[in-house]
Amino acid sequence: MPTTNAESRIPDPESRIPTGSIKALAFDAYGTLFDVFSVSSLCEQLFPGNGVALATMWRAKQLQYTLLRSMMDRYKDFRQITQDGLVYAARTLKLDLAADARARLMDAYMTLAAFPDVKPGLQELKAMGLRLAVLSNGEPMMLQSAARSAGIAELLDVMISVDEVKVFKPSPRVYELASAHLRMPTSSIGFVSSNSWDVNGASAAGLTTFWIQRAAAEPAEELGYPASYVIHLLTDLSNIIRSF
Amino acid sequence: MPTTNAESRIPDPESRIPTGSIKALAFDAYGTLFDVFSVSSLCEQLFPGNGVALATMWRAKQLQYTLLRSMMDRYKDFRQITQDGLVYAARTLKLDLAADARARLMDAYMTLAAFPDVKPGLQELKAMGLRLAVLSNGEPMMLQSAARSAGIAELLDVMISVDEVKVFKPSPRVYELASAHLRMPTSSIGFVSSNSWDVNGASAAGLTTFWIQRAAAEPAEELGYPASYVIHLLTDLSNIIRSF
Repeated sequence: MPTTNAESRIPDPESRIPTGSIKALAFDAYGTLFDVFSVSSLCEQLFPGNGVALATMWRAKQLQYTLLRSMMDRYKDFRQITQDGLVYAARTLKLDLAADARARLMDAYMTLAAFPDVKPGLQELKAMGLRLAVLSNGEPMMLQSAARSAGIAELLDVMISVDEVKVFKPSPRVYELASAHLRMPTSSIGFVSSNSWDVNGASAAGLTTFWIQRAAAEPAEELGYPASYVIHLLTDLSNIIRSF
Repeated sequence: MPTTNAESRIPDPESRIPTGSIKALAFDAYGTLFDVFSVSSLCEQLFPGNGVALATMWRAKQLQYTLLRSMMDRYKDFRQITQDGLVYAARTLKLDLAADARARLMDAYMTLAAFPDVKPGLQELKAMGLRLAVLSNGEPMMLQSAARSAGIAELLDVMISVDEVKVFKPSPRVYELASAHLRMPTSSIGFVSSNSWDVNGASAAGLTTFWIQRAAAEPAEELGYPASYVIHLLTDLSNIIRSF
């Protein structure tokens, strides 16, 4: 039985525990469906001894640049930001990032591995008749490429990218896209992410939220808008949704 | 002679090399005037073996929370965010942060040390007749407290806090406050920061920018709006300003 952790029992005037039924789920992509650290092995192959450090700093910078560029009102798409983060991380670690190494790492980012619970979890939810969407910082072509290579493209009804509003998560303008694209009220949509900050953003925007806290998860962020539900695997979702 | 690095020679349609004279300087506070890592020794005293890790993660989370809360449109002031960052960092490092340890660390943040080049640098600039301001994420009382304890309060003409617009750097709304408070056009104001992302934000907002790259500085961020000038100490500023 999936657990609901202490967080969701803390009274919070702005948190939403669903009263009706969830008819659609929108999933974060990077870190939730796709394992961003699946590039670590190529990082290690290209820069022996520095693979984990490079992959970790690359990811951190990529996220930071989505926030900084949004705040500066100087949007660039996630592909460009991913490359900028890689360039910065390599320079900081004093690694010589030649053009072909950069291209290989960026290619690897187009075909990230999905976590093992993703495909079976989505199949169960699809069989229940739920509409399934991706709601991601990713640029549309990146998202298509990743979903195809992970073999989950046919399970997803809608791919929603922040590219259409030119601002990244956790802006409420991003989470509002789910209702518009799925053509149903926010109260019928659940949002699923492994990133606690993303969950906080979606909760603040009024969505019912599910935090997938996989084994390596960091603690919940101190941002005031915790998850409605905490689960450990994507395959935990179907039981919770059925219980509503 | 202060150096102007390669960055500022890269043609960039939006970078501004000053054509007129600079009549006022606005300084970032945390990391630029005040050494945020001066809390490391108290961190180490309270949590032996974990002082540097705690101080580093505390600072990173504090900055991340300013960005995330701005993006979520859920502003809280810098004192609260600083405390939230500390709580998160301690939890992640599995340190037991008792109420009195938390209070001592927060108190330490109210009386950070100034870098050694700060007071002499400000004195030189003041003697040149420049108006000097602080333009900071800090909450007004924190800024007053830090400036007093560092002995530089009387050198500063204006203390400008983001608190009045309820959004953090690098929003252009923050940098626009400088012109309003100093009652002069943006073209007459130089902005000084040790944080490359802050410099990028101010450059994008049209200010002439000075990046203080002290010994431990990280590489320039890949954000597209580099510093107009790169210096190494605050005492390098007076010569540059005179050369305009």
